Amino acid sequence: MQDLTWQDVDQYIEDHDSPVVLVPIGSTEQHGPHLPLGVDAYQALDLAEGIAETANVLTTPPIWFGDAAHHLGFPGTISLSTETVVALLTDVYDSLALHGFENIITINGHRVANLPAIETATKQATEAHPESHFAIVDPLRIGVQVHERLRDGGAEDGMHGGEFETSFMQAKHPELVKEKAFVRETHKGFSRFHSNNLIDLDDTVLSPSTRRRPEEGYLGHVGDPTKASPKKGEQIYDTVVENTVTYIEELLASQEG
Amino acid sequence: MQDLTWQDVDQYIEDHDSPVVLVPIGSTEQHGPHLPLGVDAYQALDLAEGIAETANVLTTPPIWFGDAAHHLGFPGTISLSTETVVALLTDVYDSLALHGFENIITINGHRVANLPAIETATKQATEAHPESHFAIVDPLRIGVQVHERLRDGGAEDGMHGGEFETSFMQAKHPELVKEKAFVRETHKGFSRFHSNNLIDLDDTVLSPSTRRRPEEGYLGHVGDPTKASPKKGEQIYDTVVENTVTYIEELLASQEG
Amino acid sequence: MQDLTWQDVDQYIEDHDSPVVLVPIGSTEQHGPHLPLGVDAYQALDLAEGIAETANVLTTPPIWFGDAAHHLGFPGTISLSTETVVALLTDVYDSLALHGFENIITINGHRVANLPAIETATKQATEAHPESHFAIVDPLRIGVQVHERLRDGGAEDGMHGGEFETSFMQAKHPELVKEKAFVRETHKGFSRFHSNNLIDLDDTVLSPSTRRRPEEGYLGHVGDPTKASPKKGEQIYDTVVENTVTYIEELLASQEG
Amino acid sequence: MQDLTWQDVDQYIEDHDSPVVLVPIGSTEQHGPHLPLGVDAYQALDLAEGIAETANVLTTPPIWFGDAAHHLGFPGTISLSTETVVALLTDVYDSLALHGFENIITINGHRVANLPAIETATKQATEAHPESHFAIVDPLRIGVQVHERLRDGGAEDGMHGGEFETSFMQAKHPELVKEKAFVRETHKGFSRFHSNNLIDLDDTVLSPSTRRRPEEGYLGHVGDPTKASPKKGEQIYDTVVENTVTYIEELLASQEG
Amino acid sequence: MQDLTWQDVDQYIEDHDSPVVLVPIGSTEQHGPHLPLGVDAYQALDLAEGIAETANVLTTPPIWFGDAAHHLGFPGTISLSTETVVALLTDVYDSLALHGFENIITINGHRVANLPAIETATKQATEAHPESHFAIVDPLRIGVQVHERLRDGGAEDGMHGGEFETSFMQAKHPELVKEKAFVRETHKGFSRFHSNNLIDLDDTVLSPSTRRRPEEGYLGHVGDPTKASPKKGEQIYDTVVENTVTYIEELLASQEG
Amino acid sequence: MQDLTWQDVDQYIEDHDSPVVLVPIGSTEQHGPHLPLGVDAYQALDLAEGIAETANVLTTPPIWFGDAAHHLGFPGTISLSTETVVALLTDVYDSLALHGFENIITINGHRVANLPAIETATKQATEAHPESHFAIVDPLRIGVQVHERLRDGGAEDGMHGGEFETSFMQAKHPELVKEKAFVRETHKGFSRFHSNNLIDLDDTVLSPSTRRRPEEGYLGHVGDPTKASPKKGEQIYDTVVENTVTYIEELLASQEG
Repeated sequence: MQDLTWQDVDQYIEDHDSPVVLVPIGSTEQHGPHLPLGVDAYQALDLAEGIAETANVLTTPPIWFGDAAHHLGFPGTISLSTETVVALLTDVYDSLALHGFENIITINGHRVANLPAIETATKQATEAHPESHFAIVDPLRIGVQVHERLRDGGAEDGMHGGEFETSFMQAKHPELVKEKAFVRETHKGFSRFHSNNLIDLDDTVLSPSTRRRPEEGYLGHVGDPTKASPKKGEQIYDTVVENTVTYIEELLASQEG
Repeated sequence: MQDLTWQDVDQYIEDHDSPVVLVPIGSTEQHGPHLPLGVDAYQALDLAEGIAETANVLTTPPIWFGDAAHHLGFPGTISLSTETVVALLTDVYDSLALHGFENIITINGHRVANLPAIETATKQATEAHPESHFAIVDPLRIGVQVHERLRDGGAEDGMHGGEFETSFMQAKHPELVKEKAFVRETHKGFSRFHSNNLIDLDDTVLSPSTRRRPEEGYLGHVGDPTKASPKKGEQIYDTVVENTVTYIEELLASQEG
Repeated sequence: MQDLTWQDVDQYIEDHDSPVVLVPIGSTEQHGPHLPLGVDAYQALDLAEGIAETANVLTTPPIWFGDAAHHLGFPGTISLSTETVVALLTDVYDSLALHGFENIITINGHRVANLPAIETATKQATEAHPESHFAIVDPLRIGVQVHERLRDGGAEDGMHGGEFETSFMQAKHPELVKEKAFVRETHKGFSRFHSNNLIDLDDTVLSPSTRRRPEEGYLGHVGDPTKASPKKGEQIYDTVVENTVTYIEELLASQEG
Repeated sequence: MQDLTWQDVDQYIEDHDSPVVLVPIGSTEQHGPHLPLGVDAYQALDLAEGIAETANVLTTPPIWFGDAAHHLGFPGTISLSTETVVALLTDVYDSLALHGFENIITINGHRVANLPAIETATKQATEAHPESHFAIVDPLRIGVQVHERLRDGGAEDGMHGGEFETSFMQAKHPELVKEKAFVRETHKGFSRFHSNNLIDLDDTVLSPSTRRRPEEGYLGHVGDPTKASPKKGEQIYDTVVENTVTYIEELLASQEG
Repeated sequence: MQDLTWQDVDQYIEDHDSPVVLVPIGSTEQHGPHLPLGVDAYQALDLAEGIAETANVLTTPPIWFGDAAHHLGFPGTISLSTETVVALLTDVYDSLALHGFENIITINGHRVANLPAIETATKQATEAHPESHFAIVDPLRIGVQVHERLRDGGAEDGMHGGEFETSFMQAKHPELVKEKAFVRETHKGFSRFHSNNLIDLDDTVLSPSTRRRPEEGYLGHVGDPTKASPKKGEQIYDTVVENTVTYIEELLASQEG
Repeated sequence: MQDLTWQDVDQYIEDHDSPVVLVPIGSTEQHGPHLPLGVDAYQALDLAEGIAETANVLTTPPIWFGDAAHHLGFPGTISLSTETVVALLTDVYDSLALHGFENIITINGHRVANLPAIETATKQATEAHPESHFAIVDPLRIGVQVHERLRDGGAEDGMHGGEFETSFMQAKHPELVKEKAFVRETHKGFSRFHSNNLIDLDDTVLSPSTRRRPEEGYLGHVGDPTKASPKKGEQIYDTVVENTVTYIEELLASQEG
């Protein structure tokens, strides 16, 4: 949307019965020694652009920062408090609803970790703007099947900076991936209820991540980048785009009735 | 804890290496014509008492209100904003951490719906009190397997006021269940990405509930109370208590090291 | 209200011209070695139930926590900030006003100490909901005469955990009172303007309580439990209930005109 | 303090063991057709100056605005929300405590009505600055006896803009008093629990004032200015000053020990 | 306005098509060893009274405190946070707009330093009250030419407590000026982009002031009081009053159309 | 910084005595029919990248949104409240100061309009992080001379979307400029104190912009794009980069001492 004039946006809204806009949000945070800080924002941005192009919808500029306090032990991580993320999204949603966007879909690149903030903001926006529909697309929620199908590692290998995110970056930003730095890092939880599996549910107690530090010997990521491949990344990307486009089509069809 | 003196609590903390306290939180909100407004708080309270007794830990008095704006169309629903729930829990956690409780476990009876608020509060508390461990027990997260195993209905039958919550109340508060008012209510989402399945993950887009009203013909609940039975309720209760007690034992064992 | 369905509440509101609801709020805080932490909440809860039954009005579930920072030196005390109490009550009031309750009466068991927060919340609610009437019942305000009449001790004997609260608990929850731990504790203020008399006014400078600690030799309460008796407790309870019921009757009569 | 340099204040603090500062706060709000909007601030200011001179302590510049939403129906009333008053006082207290003032005494001219805000701010400041002592002087709290002794009218005659405040203004700012506009205005509450008596306690339910408007025929004040006299005003002023000075002397004596 | 009754204000508003009110805001903060803490508030107050009298408009009572954290190292400075200033002004503006003031002009005596807070508050008030016009008069913005014309010192001589403010106080409050304490104090910035010139623009990087302390040898002011004269002060005062009166006349003329 | 790993950032901080980081912030808002919504963010981003490369410092990812409520009448404008901008910058500054960046320079592309928010945030950050230096670079503040020198239009021609911003976009993003839509738009203020001159100071009253709407015939921009040229844009860009690099060099030199 940053490259359109206000008249272009005006035209788009007039031309569509239920205008749709995407809001990509990521995070700037450590992803181990092999991936750049911007991984989560790149994912949000890439997915939003792919979806927007395929579904012919608009997308706002990206939000590069998210809720990442537990990564602040590592230099370069920039974290917003949950309240700030909620305030930021609320203002963005208010602006978009004011202009008549009836479908406002947030694309979350900070997989799962931004969800409490985004769920809070969309819940409040739904109360404030009953004429607009709010939804959240998270690769680890809309792409459960594809992640399950493609994985070569175990549950814990696909976590932060592991098999899945490395694959995505190899597919979309190979020049930013340092393959020589690939190391498997996993940390067994103390309990069988501490799930490392973000794409399936089993008996789980939820517990916030604690702040690790490089001084304690941690590399930052949790997972196995050596299980990654560009091909997996492409397939994840394609599936998430495809699923979201299907969702938008079903959404628009339901609103026509 | 409300029945103990401060000296009793003092003694408990001194007697235990890693003292544990439970914080039950529910909601006061409509649960259809067959269940009382207090279902979620009763669940939190019953579970907390069961766990506390079995594991020999303390429990705070219950929080009867939660984040329930989408139910406000129905009389009797009392909703706190997400910010208020976060502020409330934050103050409770701060008090408990000050007294030296090293393990503070929130028991959520407002299944899944209170999670964004509780996750936000525990995340911030973890940053503020690194010497304390925070965890969240939600029946639909720690009891995934038992819910799966017991269900007779489909995914949507187990939602708000449906098969599972009705079973729980039949087991624990049968005098508050109006069996004559049992009606199956399900509302198909517009999309295959709109999951009704709270205890399993499939490709899903997250979208906040909108506020329904009785004037539109809704009864309030979503699910099938006719699939409920006291026996299922007992089994769910027993399993959640048992799992949580196991979790606490593993937690304390890990902290002894 | 927690034991009613939404249809029960709906019916109550429809059946009454000026529907009334009570909101009991207490505190979980130290009350010396002889009384449990829940004294203030038990008082709010007991009074609300007594009033509701006699006047045929509804009552919400209780709020167990209040503004008790000055007691945080004693284990088990859980304190909300004044802002949190205001936010919590505001959300509860908003929900109740939305459902059409025209009279919303807060029953304060944390005698006097919660008043700044409740006065702030009711003042703001009065501005926000001019169609609803807000009122606060505090035993030490609506029961001035009965407290004066019954007292055997001096002014300072009836303060926190002293003659009056111990009597109340002896009457209503005798199993929670440790009579063997009864000790008179009084602390003379430095000035004749420092009133210990909560039920009469004399020349006074207001000054917030400071945080005492058991390490300094304090037992926590201020007053004389040995002056307490179950009979006094019954009379206080009966009078506060009776006065409040009279108030509600006068209120409803004034609204009929 | 506004007429001193920072070096003067520095000297004062160095010269005193337990330096004392007064913070006068009033309100700018309607006081009927016979008194100016500034009555409450003039009272705070006059009293603070009198006390400061007699006790040789400092006073900050006055705060002219208070919590007066219920008077906003009348032109010229300027009201701060309770939160704003708390924030304002908190910042002032923080600054003063930082400079080493060990006794910070707020002089409230907006009799009783500002108390919830000031009590909240002093309570929080006491927690934040345990090395400083906070106190509140309100003419209707520190001058209970003198008001009782001097009154010619009944309880309701001494309320907002009535016998007492008119006397004060006649004594201190006679040029601002319009004696020709003196009218007795009293509004019986609906209930015997609705106290009009601000200087004595009887069985009372607390209930926030609702917003009256001139369009409804109200003159704004509640009380009887015809019962006022400059002499009463002088006596009230003298007594409040004298009592406060005594309080300060006792306070300083207690801190010397 | 503090000396008017509500009926006086009511009359003023009725008598004028586009009623105007001034809101003077200053600061209580160190101004070196030669000027009192109240300089900024005296300027706001004096200017507001002069403008009000000449233009026949109303003025609210003054706000004596502003955003002065960087002066807190010096005793006697009282600082509000930016948020508190915004909240305070917002409440004042809301009250005034409610009464029908169509032009609300803030007179800032805390030259330039209060502007971010006032700009934020007027911006939000403009959104909230589109029927009212908000403006800010700051001597260093509306009196650029007169300051330029009168100055004898260089750019840095006219800063905090220097040539201009000392002149103003000599003209209006000579009894509060300690001429024997006049000392020139200037601190060269590290960079040519660090402007000391508040009344002209050149290539500049904006950078917040840091907190200086007397312990480090600072006297507090920055500028040259020896360049001050009562005559300059009178001319500055006259010009700012005159310019503001002209502005108000043009404003009212534009609103008549 | 988004393309670096945390180890890269760690290395940069270790290698530099006084590490420097830039924070580019813009706005997404209407800029007339000839310029895209992203103009302000592109300016911030382009300048930050140019400065970072020349001065060998780091830059965070850009913030695409700013304080733009007065443009919300035009579709596509996305506005954050001033509070949200302050919260967002505060969190970013806190993260950067935590990692040891001693110089944190915000590059503002939303010329002048974002300044109250950025000034507030940098002021608070200076208090919170005295070990870090905060500064703000705004093209219309650090580039006063170059703007003056290059201008062909009058003062009002260079405002929002006019001569200067159009030149910048022609130089850096010519494909986003619609030259066929160039129209001169100027709106005379009602008063000679209403300055249109953002790069020089004359006697001025500050007054927030009001919300215009296309329905009222406005095109959105204020200024004269026909006076723009790519060459002017290049010169402005070069000068702002050069000035900022000089500033950074002087800053680092001053910190070495």
